[in-house]
Amino acid sequence: MRGKNYSHGGNWREVAKRYGLSVDNILDFSANINPWASSLRVEEIVKDNLKNIYHYPDPQCTLLIKQISQYLGVDRENILAGNGSTELIYLAVRTLLPPRALIFAPTFSEYERALKTCGGEPKFLFLKESQGFSVSIRRIIEKTKDVQAVFICNPNNPTGTFFPKGELLQVLKITEEKKIALIVDESYLDFKYPGETLVKEAQKANHLLVLRSFTKFFAIAGLRLGYGVAGRHLIEKMAGSKEPWTVNSLAQAAGVYLLRNEEKTKKIREAVNKESEFLFGELSQITGLKPYPPEANFILVKLETGPSSSKLREDLARKGILIRDCINFAGLKNRFFRVAVRKREENLRLIGSLREAI
Amino acid sequence: MRGKNYSHGGNWREVAKRYGLSVDNILDFSANINPWASSLRVEEIVKDNLKNIYHYPDPQCTLLIKQISQYLGVDRENILAGNGSTELIYLAVRTLLPPRALIFAPTFSEYERALKTCGGEPKFLFLKESQGFSVSIRRIIEKTKDVQAVFICNPNNPTGTFFPKGELLQVLKITEEKKIALIVDESYLDFKYPGETLVKEAQKANHLLVLRSFTKFFAIAGLRLGYGVAGRHLIEKMAGSKEPWTVNSLAQAAGVYLLRNEEKTKKIREAVNKESEFLFGELSQITGLKPYPPEANFILVKLETGPSSSKLREDLARKGILIRDCINFAGLKNRFFRVAVRKREENLRLIGSLREAI
Repeated sequence: MRGKNYSHGGNWREVAKRYGLSVDNILDFSANINPWASSLRVEEIVKDNLKNIYHYPDPQCTLLIKQISQYLGVDRENILAGNGSTELIYLAVRTLLPPRALIFAPTFSEYERALKTCGGEPKFLFLKESQGFSVSIRRIIEKTKDVQAVFICNPNNPTGTFFPKGELLQVLKITEEKKIALIVDESYLDFKYPGETLVKEAQKANHLLVLRSFTKFFAIAGLRLGYGVAGRHLIEKMAGSKEPWTVNSLAQAAGVYLLRNEEKTKKIREAVNKESEFLFGELSQITGLKPYPPEANFILVKLETGPSSSKLREDLARKGILIRDCINFAGLKNRFFRVAVRKREENLRLIGSLREAI
Repeated sequence: MRGKNYSHGGNWREVAKRYGLSVDNILDFSANINPWASSLRVEEIVKDNLKNIYHYPDPQCTLLIKQISQYLGVDRENILAGNGSTELIYLAVRTLLPPRALIFAPTFSEYERALKTCGGEPKFLFLKESQGFSVSIRRIIEKTKDVQAVFICNPNNPTGTFFPKGELLQVLKITEEKKIALIVDESYLDFKYPGETLVKEAQKANHLLVLRSFTKFFAIAGLRLGYGVAGRHLIEKMAGSKEPWTVNSLAQAAGVYLLRNEEKTKKIREAVNKESEFLFGELSQITGLKPYPPEANFILVKLETGPSSSKLREDLARKGILIRDCINFAGLKNRFFRVAVRKREENLRLIGSLREAI
């Protein structure tokens, strides 16, 4: 957490300081935040709720859970809200204490970190470049042999690897039989595949936890809001050791509001996907770059020739453009970077700068 | 956390619902939130920072830690920010994993809960009514014999039991020698005894953690902000297993602002203490009530005759006045309640209602 080796995207403050740039001039493609979400004007709702900062937040998140329940068609007893889905990753690991857990490589690094802080050992399932970072369900199932938990980020960050619901149900069948915890992180699912969610299955299952986030699609990364859906027994167990006030009052109000905007949400989804395709097309036309087809609001890109990913990151940072160097993702070495999909003009600036740099 | 037996103060939403009251008409004496803090107008700062909700919070809390460092005169490396001091209670327990910890009874219930969620066992030091809920340093030291951690809330919630710095240094001497973790929660210290803080000692010690909160004095309970001060080794260890983004962007901005207002802070302190004395005097004059002298912004009161604390709580709740029934604090049974100190007019309403009810 602390120290210089902060390993996620979104560290624009540091970049601004290092290169003497104004924070307002920085274009951040390194964090997968959805710029269309600002059309929902959630800051107005936060403003209307400012008086709530003087009261303890509702530790039960009653109104929020009610809204999520309606939105998903899942019972309230099957939902637990958290300080981003990250709190629920850590809480799940602390509750389940799996000695060994299957984790994709590369993937979001907090699964491994949460596991290790609780003394667990990761067993990696390497997504191979030679196979387009895909993996068969058969292979996942084979790998569940000696683990007590399985983490699947669907679609996977940063590779975009995506499993349709039907495929994950095959994994679920096995994990339920063997009483292995299956943790499916759907933080990026709503961009392209909202219908593929496993929340309804989670309600009925005993060992499935589905994680959902307001950070990416709704872009309220700074407010901190996520939730988990699982069988009642697992939710109760997690709630039993959860810290009481982790979800602040403003995040609760924002969450209620955001889930009431289904029409606007649909339009945002269409805009992101249209622009994803555009950005993918443009990246494909730059010699030396190999982008992977977008399955959410980000694109993984291979540098087939030219500078290393770290060199490219530095070159672009000097111009105020942040990309996510994937060097610290297991298996990606110094030839990959990830970009979030932003709006047209910004994407064109990225494309222009990439052409210059390569 | 979940369920009906929510055991802290501040549950005005539930009361409003139960008695069909408008939330605006409820006077909440049950949560120890400082009403004078609103003069700092922190909501204006939050409003100015609303755009930050669309970015990940700085996981290092760089600007906030810098400000706390200046405010306390303690190095940045000795400070860790959290989602209220409650996050740091749980993080400390998870980091230190004490098999047994000394905990006062009655006190803030989260020490015991944090300990138990990590498999630890509380060893209680009972504060006795017959001794005015005071306890000698000698007795605390005796009780450290077979524990690996000691929690002291100073002043203690809800009894107001207060230890001057010199006394706690005697405990610290022993705990440092025996490598016992001493966790001193100073959430209520700033109301009356800002000079008695142990933060400078924490910087130099190996096994002392001082917890500080923005929830009570600065009243931003809904934003979630607290911090811990300790020796560099302990801070690093806690930071090593801390979840990354628990302190939201708005809380960080609010914290920086609040610590820059020392002059106003001083005036707020004077106002609270003056009103504490007034409320104490008024409570003393009601036959059947025995208030304990205020050491912070709350007063513990014994019902020497008349209704049980639960009956009184219900009677007052019907009128929209919330008090903290102390029945679920160990050792206090159904004869004690706690009230926060509010502004004059509100305190007079409380006094009037108490006179009617008893």
